[in-house]
Amino acid sequence: MYRQLPRLTVFALTLTMPLTATMAAGPTAMHGFTAESAAIEATLEARFDAGLKASEMKDWLKRLASEPNHVSSTHDKANAEFMLAEFKKWGWDARIETFDVLYPKPKQELLELVGPTHFRASLHEPPIAEDRSSQDTRAALPPYNAYGADGDVTGEVVYANYGMPDDYKDLARRGISVKGRIVLTRYGGGWRGLKPKLAYEHGAIGCLIYSDPKDDGYGAADAYPAGAGRPALSLQRGSVADMPIYTGDPLTPGVGSTKDAKRLAIADAKTILKIPVIPISYTDAKPFLAALKGPVAPANWRGGLPMTYHIGPGPAKAHLVIHSDWSQQTIYDVIATLRGSEFPDEWVLRGNHHDGWVFGASDPLSGNVAMMGEMKAIGQLAAAGWKPKRTLVYSSWDGEEVGLLGSTEWVETHMEDLAKHAVAYINSDGNSHGFFGAGGSPSLQRLVDEVAAGVTDPTMHATVLERSRARAIIAAGHGEESRRVAQSLLKGGDLPLEPLGSGSDFTPFLQHAGVASLNLGFGNDDPSGVYHSIYDSYDHYIRVEDPDLNYGVALAEVAGHAMLRLADADLLPFHEQELASNVTRYIEELEKITDKMRADTLDTNQIIEQKLYDLGADNADPVGPPPHEDQVPFLSFAPLKNAALALTASAAEFDASYTAALNGKRPALSKSTLAAVNAQLRAAEPALLAVEGLPGRDWYKHMIVAPGLHTGYGAKTLPGVREAVEERRWSEATDYIAIITRTLDAHRAVIDSANKLLR
Amino acid sequence: MYRQLPRLTVFALTLTMPLTATMAAGPTAMHGFTAESAAIEATLEARFDAGLKASEMKDWLKRLASEPNHVSSTHDKANAEFMLAEFKKWGWDARIETFDVLYPKPKQELLELVGPTHFRASLHEPPIAEDRSSQDTRAALPPYNAYGADGDVTGEVVYANYGMPDDYKDLARRGISVKGRIVLTRYGGGWRGLKPKLAYEHGAIGCLIYSDPKDDGYGAADAYPAGAGRPALSLQRGSVADMPIYTGDPLTPGVGSTKDAKRLAIADAKTILKIPVIPISYTDAKPFLAALKGPVAPANWRGGLPMTYHIGPGPAKAHLVIHSDWSQQTIYDVIATLRGSEFPDEWVLRGNHHDGWVFGASDPLSGNVAMMGEMKAIGQLAAAGWKPKRTLVYSSWDGEEVGLLGSTEWVETHMEDLAKHAVAYINSDGNSHGFFGAGGSPSLQRLVDEVAAGVTDPTMHATVLERSRARAIIAAGHGEESRRVAQSLLKGGDLPLEPLGSGSDFTPFLQHAGVASLNLGFGNDDPSGVYHSIYDSYDHYIRVEDPDLNYGVALAEVAGHAMLRLADADLLPFHEQELASNVTRYIEELEKITDKMRADTLDTNQIIEQKLYDLGADNADPVGPPPHEDQVPFLSFAPLKNAALALTASAAEFDASYTAALNGKRPALSKSTLAAVNAQLRAAEPALLAVEGLPGRDWYKHMIVAPGLHTGYGAKTLPGVREAVEERRWSEATDYIAIITRTLDAHRAVIDSANKLLR
Repeated sequence: MYRQLPRLTVFALTLTMPLTATMAAGPTAMHGFTAESAAIEATLEARFDAGLKASEMKDWLKRLASEPNHVSSTHDKANAEFMLAEFKKWGWDARIETFDVLYPKPKQELLELVGPTHFRASLHEPPIAEDRSSQDTRAALPPYNAYGADGDVTGEVVYANYGMPDDYKDLARRGISVKGRIVLTRYGGGWRGLKPKLAYEHGAIGCLIYSDPKDDGYGAADAYPAGAGRPALSLQRGSVADMPIYTGDPLTPGVGSTKDAKRLAIADAKTILKIPVIPISYTDAKPFLAALKGPVAPANWRGGLPMTYHIGPGPAKAHLVIHSDWSQQTIYDVIATLRGSEFPDEWVLRGNHHDGWVFGASDPLSGNVAMMGEMKAIGQLAAAGWKPKRTLVYSSWDGEEVGLLGSTEWVETHMEDLAKHAVAYINSDGNSHGFFGAGGSPSLQRLVDEVAAGVTDPTMHATVLERSRARAIIAAGHGEESRRVAQSLLKGGDLPLEPLGSGSDFTPFLQHAGVASLNLGFGNDDPSGVYHSIYDSYDHYIRVEDPDLNYGVALAEVAGHAMLRLADADLLPFHEQELASNVTRYIEELEKITDKMRADTLDTNQIIEQKLYDLGADNADPVGPPPHEDQVPFLSFAPLKNAALALTASAAEFDASYTAALNGKRPALSKSTLAAVNAQLRAAEPALLAVEGLPGRDWYKHMIVAPGLHTGYGAKTLPGVREAVEERRWSEATDYIAIITRTLDAHRAVIDSANKLLR
Repeated sequence: MYRQLPRLTVFALTLTMPLTATMAAGPTAMHGFTAESAAIEATLEARFDAGLKASEMKDWLKRLASEPNHVSSTHDKANAEFMLAEFKKWGWDARIETFDVLYPKPKQELLELVGPTHFRASLHEPPIAEDRSSQDTRAALPPYNAYGADGDVTGEVVYANYGMPDDYKDLARRGISVKGRIVLTRYGGGWRGLKPKLAYEHGAIGCLIYSDPKDDGYGAADAYPAGAGRPALSLQRGSVADMPIYTGDPLTPGVGSTKDAKRLAIADAKTILKIPVIPISYTDAKPFLAALKGPVAPANWRGGLPMTYHIGPGPAKAHLVIHSDWSQQTIYDVIATLRGSEFPDEWVLRGNHHDGWVFGASDPLSGNVAMMGEMKAIGQLAAAGWKPKRTLVYSSWDGEEVGLLGSTEWVETHMEDLAKHAVAYINSDGNSHGFFGAGGSPSLQRLVDEVAAGVTDPTMHATVLERSRARAIIAAGHGEESRRVAQSLLKGGDLPLEPLGSGSDFTPFLQHAGVASLNLGFGNDDPSGVYHSIYDSYDHYIRVEDPDLNYGVALAEVAGHAMLRLADADLLPFHEQELASNVTRYIEELEKITDKMRADTLDTNQIIEQKLYDLGADNADPVGPPPHEDQVPFLSFAPLKNAALALTASAAEFDASYTAALNGKRPALSKSTLAAVNAQLRAAEPALLAVEGLPGRDWYKHMIVAPGLHTGYGAKTLPGVREAVEERRWSEATDYIAIITRTLDAHRAVIDSANKLLR
């Protein structure tokens, strides 16, 4: 369900070598390898590349996306079985692991405007002549937001913009309540699942989510098939399970949904919403918006429909009915392994999901076929006699779209295995033409840099690293941070690897199990105008995204090289200083944020006390004052800063010892020492977990990064403290300063142990 | 032609006393008055206020706006004659001064899409049932942009966004030329006259300017009559004379357009444009935009029409025909004086124009009737025996809309009088409900503060100063400057008086003749959706703007009090430190801008040399590199900074002496000393003029402030240097550093002379 790379983001790469040097210049820059092993590895990668065929990926894409392939569809299972057979054919030890998950499917849906006039929403995406698979969608489910509640509700409509926390603050200042009403929100501004959740928390009885043309329709690009914009009747399906609490089957938090797993009652599942919610097109939303009166919406609430947006409440009145089949369905994870020759108990993991909302050509199959390409090429290497030193585990996940079901249930089932064996997990999802981007664990930044510097862009005479770097430099906005990054890049500095929030299958690995993870892919500026619609089809993909799957090959090269290096490195290719420097920066941010909140709170309270909000309001649009807030105390960040300081020193020493151990100037390390160091390196990321987890969501154990409770996909770093500060829970912030300090100290202890072994 | 106050601007007031103190608290804070004279003045102002009648203003508004009143219309002359009679009736010595000006009037207009399909633009604003005067517009001129060229042109259309310099840079980076083509621009982003001027300079043969619904139509507010937004077929008339070169009759730069004045040939008039241009509604623009292909317009170019905006060129092809009557017309300035009892040769000037584009109820008549209210109330005071110490000169200007004709020709005719007699000029123009705002000479900041602190807002229990201050505080954006201002205000600091650019009749007084000036008015957040349309009517004004003319009374109070204080003060109410502190800030800005340009140029050139623009471009929308620029040298700002430093000291000494002279602790000054000091104070602003004027536009003599050559209405401070820096003319920047330094030194010499007289 991952959306393509956000616009003008600073891409997630680090440049650790002179600008003109690339991997092509020689094998010396291969982190974790001696010069001798690096030379062998470079040859291996060239053979791997030769095994990648864009035309095969295109054929697989066409086949896998030929019919609707959501969980419980015939084609979903058929795809899994097709892949299983292929993987076996290519020499992999493959199997299908199934889980039985709660998977609601709509049986009845109705949305109508019942006052002041009548209109019935079509809730239907019509066929487009240029798009073959859109002609027959009989096997598809009706459009819906999975894990919304069933219900039959009627109420006045309130337009709430993106339906995010700030929007409710704006409503409150206008004296408008959504209580007992139906909230009309537009996609964007934050994760979709927060929209009905916040609507419910504010008393609403139902929620509509439409795609405004300004955000991904004609305001962003020509509508498909002319361009990448969303057509007038297209809508965005999507899960609204409360995944920032936990992912996977809502009935089995923390354990695998095996046949005999103990399950919660649906009413007790925290991630299932309490009110009905439905996704609609702007064509269906327009009559509701047009019938609203009340205040004109603030400037940043206005979308691209040719009308003046009003907030309501009413007189528009909506009637929404949703009834679903809440039975269990089976999901099919296809798991393929290639046993390591030297360290079979060290697992290097890779995954991409195979289920789509409808045809799913871009999301997820474009990434899945790239991964298949890797598997076939690796199979050919193995058939020719090569074996990875470590065990490779490739997975094509099912049930990702509604809540990362396949990956989460697998991770929860194999927690002990992962604790013992996992080296790292590399994820991908939908892929497109454009620029390479990556997010993940800072310890893998060096690996990503080097790999990206060794892969050539399919359309330009440059490496994918050089293109991403160029883009980050020219796209740098006026923000202090992007200017800083761009200027540093111009001087040859690092592009940061983005912290991972959620939205794809890395979440259970990284944030629940503590496996060092990466998420890789290519993307561009186009709006995701067919995202989660029936038009995310093979025809669309070939027309708009990556006509010849050349960027599929590029993704296979980047991910494949990373997998091969993780599998074959003498010392696991982790580099430890980046975590320390990132954490140091995060702490500085938190101090700045807290200081700014303190100053703003003082100002705001003074403005409230002097009644300036009333005096300064325009008569035509009276906006009341915000609530008076308690003063922001000074927090003791010192323990955290000392932990970061100590880690900075330890990591620098370790990285120096690591380099010395491989540069040939010291005696070679014994195999048992290498294994012992590698065991420590594998233990470094899990040390960042805390058993108590995050406040109110203890499934999330990682103390450095998590999806934001109020951002959904977006990452929050040092989330225990950051969210406590943002929500003004000061004692919780202090508690988590201590907890994060403890995990940083634990992490440092692991690094120090590894360092001792190297000396 | 002044547009109402821009949105969320920081209003132009200074708070120089504790927040809770207002003039109501006592007369001690009346700058320029001894305690004794202040008490008398306060009583006088109360009597003045009692003479103001909102209902009379409403009647005048209805009468003056009852028919089209553009220059050459019957009603324009009738209005002048009506006012003349009234002014005389109220006891003023009144006369009409006429000038004969070039005033083009369209005879033939045609705009059509001639390919790939055909469409003929309506160029017509239809009647609206709720708006009485819109029912009969037979006496109105067709919509046009005055001083565009005649022509009959056909060409491919290019959409150029706002048609500002940056837009042409964007076009160039996409390889799109407007040469031989017709440029379609939208209103906004800068002054309208620049759109056809820049189009011509880039080779275009014609220009269309439409009002996009995002900017002032349904995207900003409900369309009139439901709200303040522009209706679907409404359009914005307006002058495109190149007023940043000079204002007034294009044929008589620098001299009054009297009967026998020497006139240029039309072809030689620099302010008349060379290509035809026409204003149109978005309904008329839509078929042209919809027919464009080529690249999708960048995000910030997209407006509110329900389509994807493309740039072209073509295939849309336009045919534009304009033929005008270029004969001379007579304009009617109504001038009324009330002779001063003690210092009749010191003139305190006030003005507002009376001509409109059509009915002109808001622009300009709402301001004009407030001024009439002042005149009637002052007439009553005079009839009761009071006389101003100085001579009052009130003017209702004609011909402002097409180029400040009435005020400019009058100023140019009376240059010697002004040099001898002028104390200050106070301007107003259209007025509305909302917040008081002011711009003008820093020496008058203290006066404005005190006056605004003594006028009560019509709708709230607060002074107009308190409301503007509250608004500036809560409207402060995230920009460094507005935060600084807001935080300073919260601590009781000053709100800066905005520097004056152009757009109303203060320009010839301030920037050509060097008369210290103010521009005063009330405004709000509403879009100016009927600006320069037939719907700027009495009915509209009463419905949307100021139903009972209560803000008309408030304007009359603010402007009237300022006039009375200027007329009666013992020492002219100038305060000198504000200029020094403003100039110091402007110099700091210029240094920052130059430093930033230097750093950016280095970065950009490096990015160009490394070909990163090519590497970082998205395949789907390739944007080429910007041009390589020469390095930015270091400029020697030291002379300017030293001049500002010296002025800071002199002004502080003067202000201290001034206060001491009036606080009763020293012997009272003789009348001749007062007169001598006042003569110096009147000489202070003219000292800021430089005989050489600004580069390429020597009509503009003021060295501290001018309308920007590329902003039109928007002010540029220290324009000789600022524009040279922005346009990378380094030696010119150095020349103007010397010239400004000279004027600051001259100004300081005047202040020092005044100070000597006071000691």
